[in-house]
Amino acid sequence: MDLGPNTATPTDAAAWVRAAAARARTASRAVAAAGAEARALGLRAAARSLRVHTEAIVAANARDIAGFDAAGGTSAFRDRLLLTPARVSAMADGVDAVAALPDPLGRALAAWTRPNGLHIARVAQALGAIGMIYESRPNVGADAAAICLKSGNAVILRGGSDSHHSAAAIHAAFTAGLAGAGLPADAVQTAPSSDRAYVGAMLAAAGALDLIVPRGGKGLVRRVQAEARVPVLAHAEGLCHTFVHADADLAMARAVVTNAKMRRPGICGATETLLVDRAAAARLLAPIVADLAARGCRFRADAEARAICPGLEPAQPGDFDTEWLDAVLNIAIVDGVAGALAHIEAHGSSHTEAIITDDEAAARAFLDSLDSAVGMWNASTQFCDGGEFGFGAEIGIATGRIHARGPVGPDQLTTFRYVVTGTGQVRP
Amino acid sequence: MDLGPNTATPTDAAAWVRAAAARARTASRAVAAAGAEARALGLRAAARSLRVHTEAIVAANARDIAGFDAAGGTSAFRDRLLLTPARVSAMADGVDAVAALPDPLGRALAAWTRPNGLHIARVAQALGAIGMIYESRPNVGADAAAICLKSGNAVILRGGSDSHHSAAAIHAAFTAGLAGAGLPADAVQTAPSSDRAYVGAMLAAAGALDLIVPRGGKGLVRRVQAEARVPVLAHAEGLCHTFVHADADLAMARAVVTNAKMRRPGICGATETLLVDRAAAARLLAPIVADLAARGCRFRADAEARAICPGLEPAQPGDFDTEWLDAVLNIAIVDGVAGALAHIEAHGSSHTEAIITDDEAAARAFLDSLDSAVGMWNASTQFCDGGEFGFGAEIGIATGRIHARGPVGPDQLTTFRYVVTGTGQVRP
Repeated sequence: MDLGPNTATPTDAAAWVRAAAARARTASRAVAAAGAEARALGLRAAARSLRVHTEAIVAANARDIAGFDAAGGTSAFRDRLLLTPARVSAMADGVDAVAALPDPLGRALAAWTRPNGLHIARVAQALGAIGMIYESRPNVGADAAAICLKSGNAVILRGGSDSHHSAAAIHAAFTAGLAGAGLPADAVQTAPSSDRAYVGAMLAAAGALDLIVPRGGKGLVRRVQAEARVPVLAHAEGLCHTFVHADADLAMARAVVTNAKMRRPGICGATETLLVDRAAAARLLAPIVADLAARGCRFRADAEARAICPGLEPAQPGDFDTEWLDAVLNIAIVDGVAGALAHIEAHGSSHTEAIITDDEAAARAFLDSLDSAVGMWNASTQFCDGGEFGFGAEIGIATGRIHARGPVGPDQLTTFRYVVTGTGQVRP
Repeated sequence: MDLGPNTATPTDAAAWVRAAAARARTASRAVAAAGAEARALGLRAAARSLRVHTEAIVAANARDIAGFDAAGGTSAFRDRLLLTPARVSAMADGVDAVAALPDPLGRALAAWTRPNGLHIARVAQALGAIGMIYESRPNVGADAAAICLKSGNAVILRGGSDSHHSAAAIHAAFTAGLAGAGLPADAVQTAPSSDRAYVGAMLAAAGALDLIVPRGGKGLVRRVQAEARVPVLAHAEGLCHTFVHADADLAMARAVVTNAKMRRPGICGATETLLVDRAAAARLLAPIVADLAARGCRFRADAEARAICPGLEPAQPGDFDTEWLDAVLNIAIVDGVAGALAHIEAHGSSHTEAIITDDEAAARAFLDSLDSAVGMWNASTQFCDGGEFGFGAEIGIATGRIHARGPVGPDQLTTFRYVVTGTGQVRP
C-alpha cells in the first residue's frame, strides 16, 4: 500500500483539511441549492472539459508513468495507472452517465399522517462534505467527483502519490468545467500533495467531514477504519462465491463461471471460490475446469473435487479464506443450497455471491438466506459494479452493513430529513 | 455521567461480549428467519409477560430507588429511575405498539431492470447484532429490545448501574415472553453487571457487533464516539429552535412555544432558543414571554428582546450554544426566515427546529433550507419522538447524517441487500 511521502507536517495538513472542509461544506450547500438541472449541466460541462483537456491529462499521466517506471513498478499496477485518450474519453462518458441519472435529492422517501393531524415526510438530502482517499487508478477521482456532485455533496480527494500529476490535471479540467457552468470549484478539491499527513488529517476531521470513503487495498481501508474519527463507508474484501447447483444448465454454468473468474481476476467482484453441488459434480465440474484452464486459470481444490479432476492442486488451509485477485480459483464440493450457504458463511466476506440453477425454488432459497450485499441468480459476480447496476459510476463498493451496501452511487450518498407539517399541535 | 463500578477485568468483559455477540448474531438470524407474524407474536408475548411480572419489576425497582436515595441522588434523576405499576403498563403498551407496526423486513425498497435484462431489487434486511449502551431510565431497555426484535435484530443491553435491578427484572420478564412464543431468549441479552468494563468491551467488538447505539448524557455519547471500533448511531445534543415568523398567529405561537419549552424541559426535543421575527416582535414577544414566565420559565435574551421586555436577564456569551435541558429559554430577535436560518446554522445542533407562521411560502423557504434532522411547521418541537412519529417507540434520536436521522424506529434498524436475477448474462 502506498501511503505517499511523509514530509508535510501534521499541523500544516490538519490546518489545510479544516479549511478545505469548511469550504467544502459551504460549496455542498450551494451545489444542493442549485437544483437538479444545474447539477446535471455542471456535470456535462465537466465531462466536456475533460474531453477538451485530454492532451494535458495524458501528458500529466506520462509524468506519473515515467516516475512509476523509474521506481520499477509491476505491469498490473502500470496498466491501472495508465491513461490514454480513449480512457479519458471513457472517463468523460462516465461523468455524462452520472449527469443523466434521475436526481436523488428532495424525493419523498416516505410520507404519512398521524392521528393528531401532523403530516410527516422523510425527504432525501445531501450528506455534505465527503473525504475520498484512494490509490492509483486516476479515473476514480472523476467518478467520485461526479457522484458526489450529483447527490449535492462536495468532495475532498486525496489520491495516491503514483497518480499525483494525473489527478491534478483531471481535477483542473473537471473544476474548470464546473466553474464555467456556475457551480463552485470548491465542490471538488484535491489535497495539495499526496503526502500521507493529509490522510491522517482527513481521518481526524470529526465534525468537519461528514463521511470518509476509502477505496484501495486492504492496508489502506484497514488504516482508515482503525483511525477515522468520521464515519467510514468502507470497501473491504470481495471474497465472492459462485455456486453451481445440481439443476444448472451446463452451458450457462461454463460461460458464467469463466466470466466471473477470468474477465478481470483483479476486481473485487471476481469469483474467488467455485462451489459445486455434490449431486451433479461429476457432470458439471470437469467441463468448467477445462474452460478455465484454457484461459490460464490455476486451482486450489478440495479432496472431492480432486477425485473428479485428478490434476488439480490441493487446497491448503486458508485458501478458502484468501481473496486471490488473480487467476487462481478455489473449488469445493458442497451439499445443495444449505451446504453452499454454510461454506459462504464460514469463508465469505458478504460482498457478492451467485447461484447458477434452472430451479427457481433453489434460487429463492439461496437468495433469501444469503447475508451478502449482492445475491445473483444466473449471472456473473463481475456485474457487481455501479455502472452495471445503472448508477453511472460508483464511488466504491460498501461491504459494511450501515447506511449503504454494494455499489455506492449518488442515491447512497444522501441522507434524509423529516418535514413535519401541523396546524398548531402541542404535545400532551 | 455514570459509567458504573470498575471491578470486572477487561479480559473477562471482552470474553463475555465476544461470546454474547456470537449468540446474538445466531439469534438475529433466527429472529429474521422466523417471519413477520412470529416476531409480532413474540413481542405481544413479551408485553404480556411484562404486565404479568409487574410486581417483580416494581420490587426490583424499589431496590434501585433505595440505593439511589442512599447515595443522595437528585429528584429529577429519581423520577427518571422510578417505576410504578402504571409505568410498567405503559412500557408494555409501547412493546405492543411496536408489535403492531408494519414489518420492516423483506420490502423491496427499489427494483429496476437493466438494458441487458438483469433484474435488480434492493431489499430491506436486518442489521444483525446491536449493542445498546444507556443510562438510568429503565424503560429504555424494553423499548430498545422491542425495536431491535421487530426489525429482525438481536440486542445486547448495558444499562446504567442506578437501574441494574430494574433492568434485570425487565429483561427476565421480556425474554420469558419471547421464549414462550418460540423466539430465542439470546435475542435480548444484558451485561452480567453494570461494570464499566462491559462498555469498553462492547466498543472494541469490531466485527462482532454491527452497530452501537449510545443513549444518555453527552459524556457517555462522546466516550462512545471516541472509542468505538464498531459503527455508532449517536444521539448527541438537541439544541432546538422555534422561530416565530411575522405572520404567526399569536394564539398558536403562545400555545406551541409554551409546549415546546415547558412540557418537559429536560428532553432533547425541548426548544432551547426562541427566535422572533423583527418585523412583528413588538406584537408577539411580550405575550409569549408572559405565558412562559407564568409556567416558571427563566430567560436569556439579546439586547433587542430586552428592549421589548425590559425585565429579561441578558444573554451571556455562550448561552445561545447551551442546551439547558431546564426551564431556561434563550431569546433572539432575527430578520425573517434568512435571519432565523443564519442563527440556527451558527448555534444549532441539526436536531429539530420549528417555524410558526400562516405564510406557506415562508414555511417552505424555512423547511427547504434547513439542515436539521427534523423541520416542523406550526407544531411543537417536543413532537420529535419515535412514539409521536408513529414508530411505536424509539431506540434513540440520531443526530448524525449517516444511515438514519431523527427518531430511530424499526425501519431505521435495517440495511438492505441487492437481489440480481439474470438469464446467464456475462459481463463484456
